Amino acid sequence: MTNVINEGDLILLYFDQRRTYLVAVEKGRTFHTHKGYIQLDTLISKEFGTRIASNLGVEFVALKPLLSDFVFKAQRRTQINYPKDIALIVMFSGIGPGSKLVEAGTGAGALTTALAHYVKPDGRVYSYEVRPEFTETARRNLARAGLLDHVELKNKDITIGIDETELDAVVLDLATPWLVIPHAYLAIKGGGTIVSFSPTIDQVVKTVEALQGGFADIQTVECIMRRMQIERGKTRPETLMTGHTGYITFARKRLG
Amino acid sequence: MTNVINEGDLILLYFDQRRTYLVAVEKGRTFHTHKGYIQLDTLISKEFGTRIASNLGVEFVALKPLLSDFVFKAQRRTQINYPKDIALIVMFSGIGPGSKLVEAGTGAGALTTALAHYVKPDGRVYSYEVRPEFTETARRNLARAGLLDHVELKNKDITIGIDETELDAVVLDLATPWLVIPHAYLAIKGGGTIVSFSPTIDQVVKTVEALQGGFADIQTVECIMRRMQIERGKTRPETLMTGHTGYITFARKRLG
Amino acid sequence: MTNVINEGDLILLYFDQRRTYLVAVEKGRTFHTHKGYIQLDTLISKEFGTRIASNLGVEFVALKPLLSDFVFKAQRRTQINYPKDIALIVMFSGIGPGSKLVEAGTGAGALTTALAHYVKPDGRVYSYEVRPEFTETARRNLARAGLLDHVELKNKDITIGIDETELDAVVLDLATPWLVIPHAYLAIKGGGTIVSFSPTIDQVVKTVEALQGGFADIQTVECIMRRMQIERGKTRPETLMTGHTGYITFARKRLG
Amino acid sequence: MTNVINEGDLILLYFDQRRTYLVAVEKGRTFHTHKGYIQLDTLISKEFGTRIASNLGVEFVALKPLLSDFVFKAQRRTQINYPKDIALIVMFSGIGPGSKLVEAGTGAGALTTALAHYVKPDGRVYSYEVRPEFTETARRNLARAGLLDHVELKNKDITIGIDETELDAVVLDLATPWLVIPHAYLAIKGGGTIVSFSPTIDQVVKTVEALQGGFADIQTVECIMRRMQIERGKTRPETLMTGHTGYITFARKRLG
Repeated sequence: MTNVINEGDLILLYFDQRRTYLVAVEKGRTFHTHKGYIQLDTLISKEFGTRIASNLGVEFVALKPLLSDFVFKAQRRTQINYPKDIALIVMFSGIGPGSKLVEAGTGAGALTTALAHYVKPDGRVYSYEVRPEFTETARRNLARAGLLDHVELKNKDITIGIDETELDAVVLDLATPWLVIPHAYLAIKGGGTIVSFSPTIDQVVKTVEALQGGFADIQTVECIMRRMQIERGKTRPETLMTGHTGYITFARKRLG
Repeated sequence: MTNVINEGDLILLYFDQRRTYLVAVEKGRTFHTHKGYIQLDTLISKEFGTRIASNLGVEFVALKPLLSDFVFKAQRRTQINYPKDIALIVMFSGIGPGSKLVEAGTGAGALTTALAHYVKPDGRVYSYEVRPEFTETARRNLARAGLLDHVELKNKDITIGIDETELDAVVLDLATPWLVIPHAYLAIKGGGTIVSFSPTIDQVVKTVEALQGGFADIQTVECIMRRMQIERGKTRPETLMTGHTGYITFARKRLG
Repeated sequence: MTNVINEGDLILLYFDQRRTYLVAVEKGRTFHTHKGYIQLDTLISKEFGTRIASNLGVEFVALKPLLSDFVFKAQRRTQINYPKDIALIVMFSGIGPGSKLVEAGTGAGALTTALAHYVKPDGRVYSYEVRPEFTETARRNLARAGLLDHVELKNKDITIGIDETELDAVVLDLATPWLVIPHAYLAIKGGGTIVSFSPTIDQVVKTVEALQGGFADIQTVECIMRRMQIERGKTRPETLMTGHTGYITFARKRLG
Repeated sequence: MTNVINEGDLILLYFDQRRTYLVAVEKGRTFHTHKGYIQLDTLISKEFGTRIASNLGVEFVALKPLLSDFVFKAQRRTQINYPKDIALIVMFSGIGPGSKLVEAGTGAGALTTALAHYVKPDGRVYSYEVRPEFTETARRNLARAGLLDHVELKNKDITIGIDETELDAVVLDLATPWLVIPHAYLAIKGGGTIVSFSPTIDQVVKTVEALQGGFADIQTVECIMRRMQIERGKTRPETLMTGHTGYITFARKRLG
């Protein structure tokens, strides 16, 4: 049976939405939480979804990590790409199993993780990053998510040029996307896509202007996600909210 | 070279964001638009992304259809799942290449198309629908998108039961999701996901209550997408906006 | 009794939220609607709030017009200031009964109407407008709302200068607010406010830059209003929504 | 000259948007801030808007408090009515100079302050509150804002009944507005308004159902306010945002 926790597997220990832990199940390992410690090896051979109590009798659930868990847990060292934005970037890019694309900058690999997940098993993500320490963080995060085989991490400045050609897509999350657009035009195949994520309006204006020469169907959107508190008699949007993460700009390469 | 338009290929003729046409390139076929007609067979052996003029000299771009084009063009006969919601549903569901999941209701197959796209090449979507005419519309839309091999369309009422087991996910877009949840619990494997899309708050409250017995990590979100008008000196969010499509509820199966 | 409809009074005939009519009650006047005609003089001596049937037996309510009705009905000839924005502009400006302020441009007088309403009985609004035809429209709208005595309509270009001094506030809704700011600085008393409404980001950036010399507490906000459909079992935000009207920028005059 | 700071006047000491202090100017008083102390009496006879340095040389601005400052500063002891909601409540209620209205519950008097400000000089606010300690807080806040003469604070449970009649408006911000609606119907004059503020959807549904008997033009809206960071090259909505405060429901009394 394939849905069983084996030694060495990663699990997501779930207490509540704010307290989840991505940990490896190892023989003899105890994991300490704010609600007592958990003997991880008692989970071996149990099914994912199993409940487990800490030594203080507080219950956790041992879940199989999803893409969104890897994405969320990868985000400790750089600015955050929210899962909502990653979801839209993936959809707009048009990629899927088998796609070949370039991404920059790698950062801690959160967006890279999502892109690699969706191009499996035959596609490939070429991910550019100028800061070697981020490339190494991303390498660890991708390895943990089991996706390193689908990614080529490159310690290179994408504003200088893109090595690859005939790409399905170029996905940008960096400070000066407009500097990459001439290189992206050469690297993307006809009708292929470019998707750029930027926090400020000024970046978006420069990016859209740079796209106008060689791209069609240029669109910019912002996605605002509201979490709801659902409870009969107390249902309402949550009080605190992330007001803005960034704008997503999309376009498709036009020839001639 | 693989990025070339062949006879029989579907193309997206792009004039502007509101006027795009999904058409098959056939020998001798002319396609009539509000800006004159286009000789489609002149596109054969050209690369995707090529510009083509109508007999009135108005220029279109011949693009390769993306997932979002198939999703958008599938939506003529039932209520609309917006690409933004489909993107979030896919991300929350945790599915990817190889996943096995159940969806209901099929409708015109817009969400089905996205799910099938992402589970390729080895995964499978089992899609339930009670109205045979919708199943047939969905079949045509999936065939057009080249995704029919990855989907099993079932003319069945999912509120009666789910045939499959050990599913990675169940994705619901129907009027009474709470009636499906007991069946979904049996059909999903431990730690697997359920994602439900509903326009009204009342549906969400009933769904969340039904989930509380056997699921962990229950979350409901709403995603508001704003389109931006980007033009130096005139940059602003667009005046008209879709105010609401629906709420997305997510949960993971807990055992015991 | 003061809540009685007299000959000559304006009433708001209410059918539903989209069909309301601001009409004067006159002897012998019949008012034609899409649901038949109404004998207005049968309303004389009735109380506001009375229901009245058309000759087709369709019921309307004869309401006393509120500020928001005058504001909304004034908006036919220029771009629209939404009541939500007017409400925030009034609050931010800090005005109230007795305030003395300058407004520009007058437009059709929608915002002027609100400002005049709140400075009654002793305050005064000086409203600048370069297009004489708008001034005349505003004059009619203000007269209809019974507020003309509290406003001085000026056919002048406010970017040339402001005649008044020691103002409590300057309220701007025009294309180039940054050109008015040096004049506004001279006209506003110490600690007085300036509020500017602009649809585009570029206008806001120029306005904020112009304010930085002499103003404190500079803030810009956008207010998004969602209408709700409230009905047990069908409750949800409405599908269509005004996505954007404009940004409101606020500041207070600093001395020295 | 009337715009001069006198002994006993309240001023708003402004450092930045998060650090503002509402203090009385008294002879010999020093006011301690995180940036040093300020000799308040040096402000006497200076104009509002004057800059003043602390003993550490850090500059503050001595502003005349606006309505929104009193509203904001009144909110320490109960849940918060945001200025945006207060602005809309005032606009929807249709009140202005001379209006006579009932409000409940008083809370700390934030909304009461705004209502009293706009009905000056001849109108009157009757404000109901069951908890005497809140009434006393509100009394102090209203006195500080110079508005106590326009308000009658009542230590009474409005769900039992309303003493006043022929009201222009009833404004509700309490947990069970639907219990007040039968009383409000009797107290409001024909065509008069009721405005209710509630955080949860469930409260809104009950309120709207209670209104359907005797009121026309029932509307519910939610207002989402986004603060903008305006700076050339860095312009964007702010990252953190209040996601939800409450829904505003409005209606007008229909007769018969």
